[in-house]
Amino acid sequence: MNTYIQENEWNIVEDCFSQENHPSSESLFSIGNGLMGQRANFEEAYSGKSLQGSYVAGIYYPDKTRVGWWKNGYPEYFAKVLNAPNWTGIDISINGETLDLAKCEVKDFQRVLNMKHAYIERNFTAVLSDNKEIKVSAKRFLSIIDTEIAAIQYTVTPINFDAEIIFTPYIDGDVRNEDSNYDEQFWTILNTTASKNEAYLEAETLKTKFQVAMAMRYEVEINGNKQDIANDEAIAKDKYSAYKSTIKCAKGEQATLYKYVAVLSSLNHKHEDLNKNASSQANKAIEKGFETLLAEHSKKWENEWEHSDIKIEGDIKSQQGIRFNIFQLKQTYTGEDDRLNIGPKGFTGEKYGGSTYWDTEAYCVPFCLSTANSDVSRNLLIYRYKQLDKAIENAAKLGFNNGAALFPMVTMNGEECHNEWEITFEEIHRNGAIAYAIYNYINYTGDKKYLQEYGLEVLIAIARFWKQRANFSAAKDKYVILGVTGPNEYENNVNNNWYTNTIAAWCMKYANEALEIVKNADENRFNEIIAKTKFDYAVETKEWSDVSENMYFPYSEKYNIFLQQDNYLDKEQLCADALPLCERPINQNWSWDRILRSCFIKQADVLQGLYFFEDDYSLETIKSNFNFYEPRTVHESSLSPCVHSIIAALIGDIDKAYEQYLRTSRLDLDDYNDEAHEGLHITSMAGTWMSIVQGFGGMRVKNDKVYFKPLIPSQWKSYSFNVIFRENTLNVYVSSEKTIIKNLHGNDISLVINDKEYLIKSNDSITI
Amino acid sequence: MNTYIQENEWNIVEDCFSQENHPSSESLFSIGNGLMGQRANFEEAYSGKSLQGSYVAGIYYPDKTRVGWWKNGYPEYFAKVLNAPNWTGIDISINGETLDLAKCEVKDFQRVLNMKHAYIERNFTAVLSDNKEIKVSAKRFLSIIDTEIAAIQYTVTPINFDAEIIFTPYIDGDVRNEDSNYDEQFWTILNTTASKNEAYLEAETLKTKFQVAMAMRYEVEINGNKQDIANDEAIAKDKYSAYKSTIKCAKGEQATLYKYVAVLSSLNHKHEDLNKNASSQANKAIEKGFETLLAEHSKKWENEWEHSDIKIEGDIKSQQGIRFNIFQLKQTYTGEDDRLNIGPKGFTGEKYGGSTYWDTEAYCVPFCLSTANSDVSRNLLIYRYKQLDKAIENAAKLGFNNGAALFPMVTMNGEECHNEWEITFEEIHRNGAIAYAIYNYINYTGDKKYLQEYGLEVLIAIARFWKQRANFSAAKDKYVILGVTGPNEYENNVNNNWYTNTIAAWCMKYANEALEIVKNADENRFNEIIAKTKFDYAVETKEWSDVSENMYFPYSEKYNIFLQQDNYLDKEQLCADALPLCERPINQNWSWDRILRSCFIKQADVLQGLYFFEDDYSLETIKSNFNFYEPRTVHESSLSPCVHSIIAALIGDIDKAYEQYLRTSRLDLDDYNDEAHEGLHITSMAGTWMSIVQGFGGMRVKNDKVYFKPLIPSQWKSYSFNVIFRENTLNVYVSSEKTIIKNLHGNDISLVINDKEYLIKSNDSITI
Repeated sequence: MNTYIQENEWNIVEDCFSQENHPSSESLFSIGNGLMGQRANFEEAYSGKSLQGSYVAGIYYPDKTRVGWWKNGYPEYFAKVLNAPNWTGIDISINGETLDLAKCEVKDFQRVLNMKHAYIERNFTAVLSDNKEIKVSAKRFLSIIDTEIAAIQYTVTPINFDAEIIFTPYIDGDVRNEDSNYDEQFWTILNTTASKNEAYLEAETLKTKFQVAMAMRYEVEINGNKQDIANDEAIAKDKYSAYKSTIKCAKGEQATLYKYVAVLSSLNHKHEDLNKNASSQANKAIEKGFETLLAEHSKKWENEWEHSDIKIEGDIKSQQGIRFNIFQLKQTYTGEDDRLNIGPKGFTGEKYGGSTYWDTEAYCVPFCLSTANSDVSRNLLIYRYKQLDKAIENAAKLGFNNGAALFPMVTMNGEECHNEWEITFEEIHRNGAIAYAIYNYINYTGDKKYLQEYGLEVLIAIARFWKQRANFSAAKDKYVILGVTGPNEYENNVNNNWYTNTIAAWCMKYANEALEIVKNADENRFNEIIAKTKFDYAVETKEWSDVSENMYFPYSEKYNIFLQQDNYLDKEQLCADALPLCERPINQNWSWDRILRSCFIKQADVLQGLYFFEDDYSLETIKSNFNFYEPRTVHESSLSPCVHSIIAALIGDIDKAYEQYLRTSRLDLDDYNDEAHEGLHITSMAGTWMSIVQGFGGMRVKNDKVYFKPLIPSQWKSYSFNVIFRENTLNVYVSSEKTIIKNLHGNDISLVINDKEYLIKSNDSITI
Repeated sequence: MNTYIQENEWNIVEDCFSQENHPSSESLFSIGNGLMGQRANFEEAYSGKSLQGSYVAGIYYPDKTRVGWWKNGYPEYFAKVLNAPNWTGIDISINGETLDLAKCEVKDFQRVLNMKHAYIERNFTAVLSDNKEIKVSAKRFLSIIDTEIAAIQYTVTPINFDAEIIFTPYIDGDVRNEDSNYDEQFWTILNTTASKNEAYLEAETLKTKFQVAMAMRYEVEINGNKQDIANDEAIAKDKYSAYKSTIKCAKGEQATLYKYVAVLSSLNHKHEDLNKNASSQANKAIEKGFETLLAEHSKKWENEWEHSDIKIEGDIKSQQGIRFNIFQLKQTYTGEDDRLNIGPKGFTGEKYGGSTYWDTEAYCVPFCLSTANSDVSRNLLIYRYKQLDKAIENAAKLGFNNGAALFPMVTMNGEECHNEWEITFEEIHRNGAIAYAIYNYINYTGDKKYLQEYGLEVLIAIARFWKQRANFSAAKDKYVILGVTGPNEYENNVNNNWYTNTIAAWCMKYANEALEIVKNADENRFNEIIAKTKFDYAVETKEWSDVSENMYFPYSEKYNIFLQQDNYLDKEQLCADALPLCERPINQNWSWDRILRSCFIKQADVLQGLYFFEDDYSLETIKSNFNFYEPRTVHESSLSPCVHSIIAALIGDIDKAYEQYLRTSRLDLDDYNDEAHEGLHITSMAGTWMSIVQGFGGMRVKNDKVYFKPLIPSQWKSYSFNVIFRENTLNVYVSSEKTIIKNLHGNDISLVINDKEYLIKSNDSITI
């Protein structure tokens, strides 16, 4: 853990400069607007430790796979989130001396991420040679209105001397990914120019041939008075475009540079239009000017918050945590483009690559269902539908046939791009989450047509996979699923992971149900799908029933728990709180074999299944499983605490629910697992939201109805959130005394609170 | 499979040039002399597919580890067998045209590896432009007398034209390993010279700073008449030393180049002496001349064969197979240097790296015990003793303490250098084989003092490891060993691998026995070891007994077999012969997960344990295990067929024993697993020898006595072999009618044949 962030309801504040913390801060203070994102790298030169990160949505590079020992079936490449040309840079020279915070004394440092208005601001005083002091103030944002515009305001004030300041705002294409497998650069620079009006850089990714164009304009002011920059030097090199602006700035005067960069990609523009369109965007930006751009941007964010905010009274840490999570999610994904998805690090780091994991279906879809209109979650589902053919190819590569699909563990374009056999080939439960998301979406939205339009085809391919992946064990007289990695990745290649067997059996059952539903709803479409998938109705539905109904589920009578996998109880049974702190997180301190043979659990596994299928089990069963597994769980996956928080709330263990809520919501802010410098855990942030709404709020959707069962931790005075449920927007306010539910938008709605049904009229509320 | 090698008792013959087979032939026709080895690369330029391979014993490079996803505990590097500067090269220019077999028609090609005299010879006719034909004959060897000398005789005869021939004999330091992780070169060239007398190249490995020096001299003859080469051009470039010798050679005349290269390494010479000593060796070689060098070399090899040969009458394929195996083993390791060991590919390829695997203890030690004096196997044991400290460090890295040792899976210098978690961290049974080799050595040689001198310290450290590695399972009320990879590497991270549990329990028991033996034999030394190892006698011996006696051994009553691991019977039970040929070998055709969850077995696993501990089990038990597991075994490890052959012989299944014998002995010659191009399976060749001596011959050593129980396959008329047992050398001859055992050397000996005791007087024999 590392807790240097100040407690504050609306802001993330760092008020002391530390070179050591800087890489973590670069992650924490990241900004994004769905189309691009930027780590909080300094504008000026910085020779300390830093991870440069400018990311453009959907732009990736297939980096040649690097493994020690090749296994058949490994993909040829790993799709990397790409560090794009750096648009943030502004070199600062003061009387010939380069400003570099790693090389001078820094005073009164403050870095603020303003979440309400979505910008970062940095203020500090630097002590240069001969005790020359300058005050610097830098502010930047990525517009959520003009989504291709990035803007920076950078002000230098010489405090105790007259300065010659040279501002060198630049765009730099000579960038690398730190995680490049073979230290290669992934970009070719197609074009750099620097004219009187505009500096321009156009880069193209190797192999994937995506183009990214950046057009820059700038202005300089002294004490608010615009300076003439017509004679500034324009520089265009091989991979670099810049201006050099030299200013005489007397003691106490403020020299301000405004930098406007248009960032466009070939995902949204024809290649031949990039230059023209980038120029036009940059021109539009400079015409509006920094203040106007920021004002419009801030207003839209304020508006966004009105819908999305969760308010917690009485606990600033909790309040800051949930806002940080909502903010980062909203920065990463806006749901408008079904070619995009939600990468585990969003726009905040390189690690893990890919953009799509099962996190999307298990965590992000529920978040989107309740916080956005149904198109957003539908787009996430259709993303997978569009990749079904590749999932079928992927399964064929692993020896499956008859149109069975295995969706990739990690992907950008539908092709698997992960390369650890125990994950790539064995963490197959991801297929279950994709089917579950279809169920979840239809259950939540009531959009039953989705099944016939898209869902059924996916469900058939997934059920086919599970049928083939299970085998009959004569020894057990049951179907078993051997050699898998469950959600708890601290076990590899295990047999009969309860979660996997459970979701596999459910998938086959649900696919059979879905067939019936579509058959009854639209026989033409049904026949079309049967033909398209070459479906042998009589045989396959029977096989699915057989495997599903005769699946083996490991169970311990002694503890009344489902066994995470066969032979889990052979392990030495210890609790995580017995682990010495110096050995935590164990994945940074223990060798892999030691982790594997220990009983310690990375993240919810059996409990993930009980979370998904809560209604199939008694509260008693859920309780005994939670009480057995939670103490063995080290929560070293970002996806762990939220599920634990929700189940703890369900079984009434409010203290545990609160502990786990804090952990999920402040995972990055307090850096629980010493890894914030690598980027933030974006997808798990949806889980944080769930831990309030589904956990404390007890929200569920069943049979076309919404349910609440509110609880409140003793640390809180109250909390409130909005949810969208079909045509209605509801506001839920919970304090220890009462629950108020307002029907903010939509017709009268009938809902269930604490097992009792209520009707709330349009624009009305009830208090309980 | 690929069977293009001609059947021949003493020679390996390829009589048709195929670019496709060439890389395999480069492996099969490899030569070596214990100090260096050489793949059968062509001397002249060759633009076809080829793996250049010149290897110098003990010279390795720690190549930076390449993995996709780092796991705690991985070593920083992988020790690579190094492709050294190329000493074989002779560029041939004929009237300005470069000879390159990939670019001209090749007729009457024959390549012969003469195993009796240990040289390779190549004859062919090349059709050059304008139908110019030349006949080429090339012969080379690595002297087993002058072990730092390599010699080549290369003759060109223009058949239908007068030729200007340019011979360019060279040494080339611009070499690479194909398996270099980051395409780096591993050598720095320190020095190249080319004077009138000698071309010289001195290379140094990066990081490890080994030096290798090569000094070259040469002669040219036409029709046997020495030519004046005083005016030949000497060339010394950055990484290259050579001569250019231009010869007018009339139609039908034979132009011959003799090339002598001294190859010295800093393992055996001081750096500052390398140049001088290499020159002196090269001079000695040219003085002796090619024919004399070859004659001396051949004579020594003939002599070697007298001791080591196994003769098989009536089955040329079998005869050729065993000779090839013995020959390659003898080329690789001579047993004189306890810094060296026996790499899995010897001097025939790069793959696998390292020099020391558990192959050494499980296969090579038994071979050495019977075919060489006991110093050789003792040296192999001491090699591990010297690395005990590093094995203790290695175990500590994985979380073990109290002086527990885990010997590396792959090593050059005692440090682990493999990096697959499922192997590096989990294939821990290797520790058992190292203990077993100590037992085996003492049992065979009667050298009981070895225990107190070296063995006990190793046994204590190994027993300590097993004690900590096992854990008590409350569920089973037994000790279990979780998360291992057994000898069958087609299962990873399994629980209670029977072989591992068995050898672990045995190690602890044997360590306790060894303590008693040493205590009684030499109390001073005993106390010294107790002090050195900080041994808590009362506690540790009791713990070892407890874990050893209460170990869990998975067993199936239904089949009366030991289970390879927990839940093995949950797998779909199939036989290997049901696999379509196009899917074999499965490790080249199936994805890894499919292999893992199948019942198919790579190599002896339960059967390896029954082989080691045969006397602890009834023949009935061994039979039912063999009959269950062998049909499920795909034998895709070179170490598999030999053990199966031995056990098949033991249980009287002579047909299976013969089938497996052919497979082990001709594994590379017939390329069963489509991998001969990568190099030969050197260590398993010891297993081939065992399959005759221990398998068909039924040789065992128990209670200081040697036992035989001869069988003979119906395909053979007779077979005979020599074994050294303590002071005696015995010759065993077996035909279907009789067995003759001669006491070739040593005093009278009492031995057991077919369960009956006989006395054979010195120099006498008995016939049964």
